[in-house]
Amino acid sequence: MFIQRFEEITILTNGVQLILLTDAIEKFLKSSDIENGILNVSILHTSASLIIQENADLDVQKDLINFYSKLVPMKNNFYIHSTEGEDDMPAHIKSSLTNTNLTLSVKDYKVQLGTWQGIFLFEHRLASQKRKVFLHLLGEV
Amino acid sequence: MFIQRFEEITILTNGVQLILLTDAIEKFLKSSDIENGILNVSILHTSASLIIQENADLDVQKDLINFYSKLVPMKNNFYIHSTEGEDDMPAHIKSSLTNTNLTLSVKDYKVQLGTWQGIFLFEHRLASQKRKVFLHLLGEV
Amino acid sequence: MFIQRFEEITILTNGVQLILLTDAIEKFLKSSDIENGILNVSILHTSASLIIQENADLDVQKDLINFYSKLVPMKNNFYIHSTEGEDDMPAHIKSSLTNTNLTLSVKDYKVQLGTWQGIFLFEHRLASQKRKVFLHLLGEV
Repeated sequence: MFIQRFEEITILTNGVQLILLTDAIEKFLKSSDIENGILNVSILHTSASLIIQENADLDVQKDLINFYSKLVPMKNNFYIHSTEGEDDMPAHIKSSLTNTNLTLSVKDYKVQLGTWQGIFLFEHRLASQKRKVFLHLLGEV
Repeated sequence: MFIQRFEEITILTNGVQLILLTDAIEKFLKSSDIENGILNVSILHTSASLIIQENADLDVQKDLINFYSKLVPMKNNFYIHSTEGEDDMPAHIKSSLTNTNLTLSVKDYKVQLGTWQGIFLFEHRLASQKRKVFLHLLGEV
Repeated sequence: MFIQRFEEITILTNGVQLILLTDAIEKFLKSSDIENGILNVSILHTSASLIIQENADLDVQKDLINFYSKLVPMKNNFYIHSTEGEDDMPAHIKSSLTNTNLTLSVKDYKVQLGTWQGIFLFEHRLASQKRKVFLHLLGEV
């Protein structure tokens, strides 16, 4: 029988960082009783985003943050949208370069990820934020 | 009961720009009778793309367009693929940096978007184009 | 009747390149008997990725590879994560700029792609790799 399950989780962020969501997502899967299905993960903001990246070496996270900070610098006098702070427009751009939504496969009660893959929230703002992430699983019990 | 609904919409574009699709997508949802489901949005082209971005300040759109134009300049003598015009290869690259498909959650007859999120077609070509966007909703009535 | 089908395919890569997956995906669709549904494609790695791009002119692929190689150079003394080779951290970054998952629509037994669209695996490592791609189709027979 096909069913649907939903959950909105709130993540507190503390500056530019990657926060692992895999555990929260696996907990949601477990509570859903769904064996096989499609999982949609949506971040409801435009200045933070989602990525799947290496979960082992923390240096990968530092290098990712550093790369995006250089590619989309805060100090940049071509931005017109600057009223919300010098970190806001770069945050929108970094969000557009990564993902607002991720869709994943669930098989045998497990989200299909490679050994080294983790699901991360990528915070792009400097100040602390409350981020809402919507989880939606459609599948068979 | 689970059902599926489909619609192909055509968008006329007029140079490099962002065009809001949220209203057309909400109209499709309303016509579908589906209460909860997974919505897939696909653009059937490789020189225009889809993004979810801030829908409030139009300056954000200008800065996004400007950023991508600087990151992927039209004048660039390393492009080999140039027969379709100097804007074509940059358009392919910008498309690869953003999205061809977006998958969204529908709950209580509403697409789950944050307050400031809009769904946009991102046109990367200079000349006017007819763009086809395929909408597919799978869910429960 | 709604059903689900799964398949894991293995792709051998040979250096930085784009490899067309469309045929393998269409073969999977044909074997599934599903007429209409949602297709999720996931690459189970963080140093190779997925993109939908032009399938006609091979020069587009060369220009894409060249663009990403210049945007994310291998020689770059700011990378901290360097123990797995100078191509590893750039591979993670290129992966984050493109896609780990693609979700596509299947209608009338066909994946909805534009005339010029192909689904590609984008290999970012220099050495030969075995890449696992997970296919998941949920739909109606």
